[in-house]
Amino acid sequence: MVRKYIHTFCIVMIALTYVINGFKLEDKQSTSNKSKMSLQRLTALRALMASQPTALAAYIVPTADAHNSEYIAPVDARREWLSGFTGSAGIAIVTSAKALVWTDGRYYTQFQNEVDLSVWTLMKQSLPDTPSMDKWLTSNLVSGSVVGVDPHTMTREEWTPLQTALTKAKMQLLAVDKNLIDVARFQLNDPPPERPSKDIMHLPIEYTGKTAGQKIKELRDKMAEKNVSALVITALDEVAYTLNLRGSDINYNPVFFSYLVITPSSVVLFWRDGKIPRDIREILSEEGVDLEGRPYDEITRALKELARELSENGDGEHSIWLSSEASEAIHRAASGEGDLKKPLNLISEMSPVALAKLVKNPVELEGFRQCHIRDGIAVVRFFKWLHDQIDGGTTVTEVQAADKLLEFRTEEKYFMGPSFETIPGAGENGAIIHYSPSRDGPQREIRASDMFLLDSGGQYMDGTTDITRTRHMGAPTLAQKDAFTRVLKGQIGVGSALFPKGVKGNVLDTLARKSLWDSGLDYAHGTGHGVGHFLNVHEGPAGVSWRPYPHDPGLAPGQILSNEPGYYKVGEYGIRHEDLVEIISVTNSSDHPRASKLLGDFDGRGVLGFSTLTLVPNQRKCLKLDLLDDVEIEYINAYHSRVFKVLGEILKSRGLEGDYKWLENECEPVTRS
Amino acid sequence: MVRKYIHTFCIVMIALTYVINGFKLEDKQSTSNKSKMSLQRLTALRALMASQPTALAAYIVPTADAHNSEYIAPVDARREWLSGFTGSAGIAIVTSAKALVWTDGRYYTQFQNEVDLSVWTLMKQSLPDTPSMDKWLTSNLVSGSVVGVDPHTMTREEWTPLQTALTKAKMQLLAVDKNLIDVARFQLNDPPPERPSKDIMHLPIEYTGKTAGQKIKELRDKMAEKNVSALVITALDEVAYTLNLRGSDINYNPVFFSYLVITPSSVVLFWRDGKIPRDIREILSEEGVDLEGRPYDEITRALKELARELSENGDGEHSIWLSSEASEAIHRAASGEGDLKKPLNLISEMSPVALAKLVKNPVELEGFRQCHIRDGIAVVRFFKWLHDQIDGGTTVTEVQAADKLLEFRTEEKYFMGPSFETIPGAGENGAIIHYSPSRDGPQREIRASDMFLLDSGGQYMDGTTDITRTRHMGAPTLAQKDAFTRVLKGQIGVGSALFPKGVKGNVLDTLARKSLWDSGLDYAHGTGHGVGHFLNVHEGPAGVSWRPYPHDPGLAPGQILSNEPGYYKVGEYGIRHEDLVEIISVTNSSDHPRASKLLGDFDGRGVLGFSTLTLVPNQRKCLKLDLLDDVEIEYINAYHSRVFKVLGEILKSRGLEGDYKWLENECEPVTRS
Repeated sequence: MVRKYIHTFCIVMIALTYVINGFKLEDKQSTSNKSKMSLQRLTALRALMASQPTALAAYIVPTADAHNSEYIAPVDARREWLSGFTGSAGIAIVTSAKALVWTDGRYYTQFQNEVDLSVWTLMKQSLPDTPSMDKWLTSNLVSGSVVGVDPHTMTREEWTPLQTALTKAKMQLLAVDKNLIDVARFQLNDPPPERPSKDIMHLPIEYTGKTAGQKIKELRDKMAEKNVSALVITALDEVAYTLNLRGSDINYNPVFFSYLVITPSSVVLFWRDGKIPRDIREILSEEGVDLEGRPYDEITRALKELARELSENGDGEHSIWLSSEASEAIHRAASGEGDLKKPLNLISEMSPVALAKLVKNPVELEGFRQCHIRDGIAVVRFFKWLHDQIDGGTTVTEVQAADKLLEFRTEEKYFMGPSFETIPGAGENGAIIHYSPSRDGPQREIRASDMFLLDSGGQYMDGTTDITRTRHMGAPTLAQKDAFTRVLKGQIGVGSALFPKGVKGNVLDTLARKSLWDSGLDYAHGTGHGVGHFLNVHEGPAGVSWRPYPHDPGLAPGQILSNEPGYYKVGEYGIRHEDLVEIISVTNSSDHPRASKLLGDFDGRGVLGFSTLTLVPNQRKCLKLDLLDDVEIEYINAYHSRVFKVLGEILKSRGLEGDYKWLENECEPVTRS
Repeated sequence: MVRKYIHTFCIVMIALTYVINGFKLEDKQSTSNKSKMSLQRLTALRALMASQPTALAAYIVPTADAHNSEYIAPVDARREWLSGFTGSAGIAIVTSAKALVWTDGRYYTQFQNEVDLSVWTLMKQSLPDTPSMDKWLTSNLVSGSVVGVDPHTMTREEWTPLQTALTKAKMQLLAVDKNLIDVARFQLNDPPPERPSKDIMHLPIEYTGKTAGQKIKELRDKMAEKNVSALVITALDEVAYTLNLRGSDINYNPVFFSYLVITPSSVVLFWRDGKIPRDIREILSEEGVDLEGRPYDEITRALKELARELSENGDGEHSIWLSSEASEAIHRAASGEGDLKKPLNLISEMSPVALAKLVKNPVELEGFRQCHIRDGIAVVRFFKWLHDQIDGGTTVTEVQAADKLLEFRTEEKYFMGPSFETIPGAGENGAIIHYSPSRDGPQREIRASDMFLLDSGGQYMDGTTDITRTRHMGAPTLAQKDAFTRVLKGQIGVGSALFPKGVKGNVLDTLARKSLWDSGLDYAHGTGHGVGHFLNVHEGPAGVSWRPYPHDPGLAPGQILSNEPGYYKVGEYGIRHEDLVEIISVTNSSDHPRASKLLGDFDGRGVLGFSTLTLVPNQRKCLKLDLLDDVEIEYINAYHSRVFKVLGEILKSRGLEGDYKWLENECEPVTRS
């Protein structure tokens, strides 16, 4: 699945690539009702801004929760409630006279359809003439103005440059602890929904490969090296990873709302009301962790207490370690700012948990390989089924296709649900990168004349998948074959590359674009993102893009990336080929197409390459063979032969003869002559 | 010529790639003498540190002048005087107990040979375990320490993060206005040499393509847009460019020590004693500029006066615009810091002159094309001569080769001197990226068994050249042919690439490494740097590297870059192929190998490609033809045919029949069969 980056407040924020499922405005009002409601909400917010102890000249409403999550829960969809705009990316700024939303090109049309344009202004982020938010604030507010924001909804990395810009302009960025949108919702008798807090499950050692006790021991070793007294873990997937627990509080992401605070002598989970089920406590105790519970809502109070305690403890200087992507509110609480005379020292940098889970252990890697086999079976069976329907003249809509694919995945062992909302783009819809068909209203059928782009993935107990295949339902045009082949050349360019250990993922991006660029074609998204292990399908801090990933520690064996170049002909069709790949060390004896020809090992740095996890053939009839060189043809044939060998055997053993035959045909070698 | 980047103070500083000519320690003392002198100098410095109004716990001595020049004059070689280390890159830090130099891998051996290791410590910058300077300071000094540095020798971009790091550690970075090294030199009766201030020349419009008046008008338009009251130009090449003047105060760089201050009504040059020769004033007056002169040494006083004047002027808020690469001292003077109650607002960002001169105008571009023809003649004649000598058994040393090359260049019209010190690397010396043979002591001969790497360039009135060719003097080995061909494939990969207008140069870097990476080989330098027009051979702010060029505004037609991948087998040989290339717009009708096959224009962004300026053949007998694909063979043959057509005609017209024949043979097409 594609991930995009957008610049806000001069720093890079994660943007979602599609609208979050089950998370639209609940009531469909008439336009005038909508307009009235929108104004009513704004008026309530403005009254609150004016009545603050220090009146606010502007209030910022990001699309964010307190954990810097990529996907948010309805309770945190404050910008959506305020503006009516349901896009997954966008930041609102409200002043006494203006109400604006900054968002990017994927959402301009949607914004104009959803939002009352008599009160809201769209700020088109992608246009060079659109001022950034800090520029807009500093040039539209008068000197001395105070700009408010809920410090839970902004990371310190975002907060600091914005604060610097405002200070330079003699303005102030004020942390408003009580979220004004939440207050307004109560005032208007439209309180926010409950924060989800579903049950959590333990993921056994045969899937995680490492006990929670071992993980915490390793973190404590790092804490000792840095001489810190506590580590505060704020990202939901990092808490889940550390404790070998999974939840379902956010769609598609198996995480649960929580914080984790580790000291040399304690491990405290801030979750629900603080009562951790006995079975979870027992099993974690077996894994070497005595987990204490405290209520989720007490995190800032607890951090302030901790800061005070450490500061009063006379045995030397104490520090607390947290991620620079933790919220400004958490940073303030952990340092005791505003509370202690001398704030505690914070080490605010890349989280050690993010770096630990980036490199998968052998058990996680084996899980990734295994779940990709099962996922391949499901996707192959689906495409066979789809072609049968279309060829047989049966109508299949995009939504029906997505549902059928889910059926096939559900048949597979360890399947826990989709890893994101399926993108089933038929024809022109394939060119919409964040496409999500509505279940209401008229449905788009998949026609025999369509190029069909299908981007989907599954969460399995042993890993996470994310695959895009593009297939023509009938006869592709020459231009479609040309583009399909160039995109595949790009994917092979990355997939077959060797590179020195430790380079950043960015250096691979151009390899994916090279063949398209040769024709003046390109795609407006990155080439690859990290993937969590039965965790978030988009996982930092590494990635492959022309834009920098500032926290990328460098590529290393055991990391998982997507490899997904594309091409989009707006109004006609989209093409994307996406595999997940595992980074491997390559020596002369490795199982890698270039292994035998290695002459050096980058002066001792070590040679890395990729092993492809995804196992679904690419459609042979869309290939323009004269664009492919010998190495590429060999690569395609070797891949297809591997797909058939691995999946064919399983299909046969399950007695799925039709699927077996179809796959056999799809995997036949291609030749130029 | 190769350019490298090194990280210091968490920001990127320019590092030199070779030792600057004519700029070694003048006296060669015996080891014990050297040791005594080194200690004496350190002792003098330490006494000065202790006797400052606020005693200094540490003093930093960068390799830098007040203009952030890449190459410095002897008067500014303070770190060299203090430490005895003559390398072109390195920063010294002295405390009461320690004396350290941070430098990179190119200089470790040199450092150990030159420096008294009983008092100095080498900090190996390239090793992951070496702490950065700010880390070292904050962990080795006690809280409350004051660290001093001459604010003229540090840019604000370097100053700010260092100051932040020290402040966090409760230390202070103090601007010590009087340079303590200079004071120590006077105390020890070893005063620094005079600052060069040679005569300046005017470069006529037929070379520059734009009058100084027009350039200043354009800058004033930009100043008006930004609403600034003055623009301060501090980089020497920017002053030279703006005024269409050239000097020779720094080796190889045709610049002169000066500052330029532009206001809406005045243009003031701070140079020598302020007396500008009448002919220069007159000719600039014809170009529409009334140039006022003030003494070079008065710049800070003048900026303080200006700040005061603007601040006292009641007609509104005034700002001064300067480059973020201007020194901390200039920043302080321009804001009136420490002088005015309310410091003036500074706009400290990318210099508009740097952005203007980055994109060459049509006259400059034509000059680049023309001087590359003449430079090609000189280099071709040199290589023919060299092969004749070696084949005929005549001894030629590396230094003799460099001298002979200079002779050939000197015969060419408009030649003004080398653009950097020639790198004539025979055999194992070719693997030393910043190699410069000593003129003293035993000389390395170029032998028939040698691979010979020659990196050189010329300053011409109409442009600047920078070319590397690698030729085997006898019979290359298979491994040499393999590496030679892979490096050439990399150069062709960049040279033949198409890419969207506005991408940063970095995205091209991997194309140059791809073929080497496929074998586990690489090179430890960037792929390309900008080049000035009869100005510095290394010109920012764009470049091609895996490391970021943070100020790169994006590639655009009219920019000049080098394209120079390499491969270095330490102790055996080096290979580098370097062309200068011009960025051109490419449409279906362009003169570009991929033009006819263009299918799109990147959705309106525009397609860019390169046109190669350098005209010297690559040695055919070093090619391993089965590594080349059809496109690459076509590219090589088309290039050689162009070289022969353009240069052959000139050689013939000059009656240089032998050179003509040699070139004709060198440019014959290659075929695989």
